[in-house]
Amino acid sequence: MPHIELPDGLAGIRGPMAFRPETAAPINELVDILLRGPNTLTPGERELIAASVSSRNACRYCQMIHGAVAVRHLGSESIVADVICDFEHAGVSDKMKALLAIARKVADSGKHVTTLDIARAREHGATDVEIHDAVLIAAVFCMCNRYVDGLATSAPDDAAFYRARAALVAEHGYAVSAATNLDT
Amino acid sequence: MPHIELPDGLAGIRGPMAFRPETAAPINELVDILLRGPNTLTPGERELIAASVSSRNACRYCQMIHGAVAVRHLGSESIVADVICDFEHAGVSDKMKALLAIARKVADSGKHVTTLDIARAREHGATDVEIHDAVLIAAVFCMCNRYVDGLATSAPDDAAFYRARAALVAEHGYAVSAATNLDT
Repeated sequence: MPHIELPDGLAGIRGPMAFRPETAAPINELVDILLRGPNTLTPGERELIAASVSSRNACRYCQMIHGAVAVRHLGSESIVADVICDFEHAGVSDKMKALLAIARKVADSGKHVTTLDIARAREHGATDVEIHDAVLIAAVFCMCNRYVDGLATSAPDDAAFYRARAALVAEHGYAVSAATNLDT
Repeated sequence: MPHIELPDGLAGIRGPMAFRPETAAPINELVDILLRGPNTLTPGERELIAASVSSRNACRYCQMIHGAVAVRHLGSESIVADVICDFEHAGVSDKMKALLAIARKVADSGKHVTTLDIARAREHGATDVEIHDAVLIAAVFCMCNRYVDGLATSAPDDAAFYRARAALVAEHGYAVSAATNLDT
């Protein structure tokens, strides 16, 4: 049961977002820009970073929804599962592995990122903007994970729930989807 | 030295924000709403939560700037220093102690917040919105701290630097101040 009284029927972050729409608006705007805005990283790659960090923080709702959105973008369940389980041996580019390594360190502490981590990313072609965005995506999901879990929000067990919401998010983005209910 | 090439002369979060203004805008909007918007917690109390979480995350820049903004609002250096050092024995209300206890737990993991922590806050008069905001402020600073440290941004040693910026922030807010340079 959530720690505070949240609107019925809204799982995960959608409960507190409906409870406090003033803060939900800039959070959704930030996530839409970072995960869906113009970028040399694909939306699928950016969702992988979000899902991986959420897994590191053991946030079930965020891992499930961003994993499902990544599957929707990438067309592969196994790549997403492999990245969450052991990204160093997953079927992603060396650049993505280096960015995921940075993101996972940021999840623990920004101070854990070393010049060697950055050099590895650069060696595999990562630009400054890509490194910046990997760090900020990781940081943003450290926020979202804590928001979701710090209020003890609910996380459905049914994978179909996340697939249905992921389809909506992949098509319309986070700001629009947050306000849209599904008959599931 | 920062991990990526950032604009010269901008310490802490201002460097990456100037580097990537697209994401800076919603972050500043979120922080202005949370720390300065209409609220039953005073701006000083909310800055105390930000400074305390940043201290927990050992983010020097964020602790110094939000500590300085809290001093500016509260008119007391010792209260801020005491909250950062040992909030349970600082000169703040029992409600604030309970909210700070929640925020410090969120800094480690949202999952660490217990129903007893929430009951303690309620017992001392905290509303659902205040509990929500304490959790979200903590979560937002877990993001900001990682953004600042994950890119190895600079943090001046001189306390006068933070006092000067705090005066600007206390008067004009974060969005405006982010774009304003000081001749210091």
